[in-house]
Amino acid sequence: MGLSSETIAGIIENKIDFVRRMGLKVLEAKPRYVKLAAPLSGNENHVGSMYAGAQFTLAEIPGGALAFSTFDLERYYPVVKEISIRFRRPALGDLTIEIAMSEAEARRIAAEAEENGKAEYVLEGILRDASGETVALSRGVYQLRAARH
Amino acid sequence: MGLSSETIAGIIENKIDFVRRMGLKVLEAKPRYVKLAAPLSGNENHVGSMYAGAQFTLAEIPGGALAFSTFDLERYYPVVKEISIRFRRPALGDLTIEIAMSEAEARRIAAEAEENGKAEYVLEGILRDASGETVALSRGVYQLRAARH
Repeated sequence: MGLSSETIAGIIENKIDFVRRMGLKVLEAKPRYVKLAAPLSGNENHVGSMYAGAQFTLAEIPGGALAFSTFDLERYYPVVKEISIRFRRPALGDLTIEIAMSEAEARRIAAEAEENGKAEYVLEGILRDASGETVALSRGVYQLRAARH
Repeated sequence: MGLSSETIAGIIENKIDFVRRMGLKVLEAKPRYVKLAAPLSGNENHVGSMYAGAQFTLAEIPGGALAFSTFDLERYYPVVKEISIRFRRPALGDLTIEIAMSEAEARRIAAEAEENGKAEYVLEGILRDASGETVALSRGVYQLRAARH
């Protein structure tokens, strides 16, 4: 169905200059699970912690990566509708985010996109520092759209 | 009270590498009003419209710029708590955002920060393309904090 972890990393890390410039990395991508990382270095704000926009990007990109690893991209493509991000504490080091989806939810989304041409889904993520502390919380609303409906 | 438009532009456009790399510009900054712009060029996503993270940054930075132009930075500094952004249509060109605050609201925030050490405020913005069309809507929750409370 979806693409391999290496293929997804190649796309995510290189195809969007904005993302490439911040050094975002795909650590793992398999059906219904992705883990990504962003370095503090190069992404500092004026007080030395990770700038909010870099944290946002780390929270937003997994929605696409997860769609790439889970759904058949010959038939569907993902669109981001809305993202909320709550900043809980300063990000003083590199950050990671993991996003997962249940098998039932993946089936619901594919079936709905097949029938209606699109299906909405919500992904929630936690941005963590190296010690596992929560730095920010994200909630994204995405749509999977059928390529030829 | 606040800093001049030129000083704010110098800070915003240069002090955060992440922001400098995307070419964000402060078009105007005066007490209780800022206007910023982001170029499509260099910030395209995989389908050629402006990447979501660049739009987020254009929506987030005005909160700091407005605090710089409105409040006395010897006494206060701004912190972003939460941002929501709703993407309405693809951004096919450069974007601008304007953020304004009433005089009464600015007075409330400064008085509250003086009394409690911090004051929360909400800024809503519309990201528009060159023809004035709404591309995205943002809502940011910020805090003004007293430097020495």
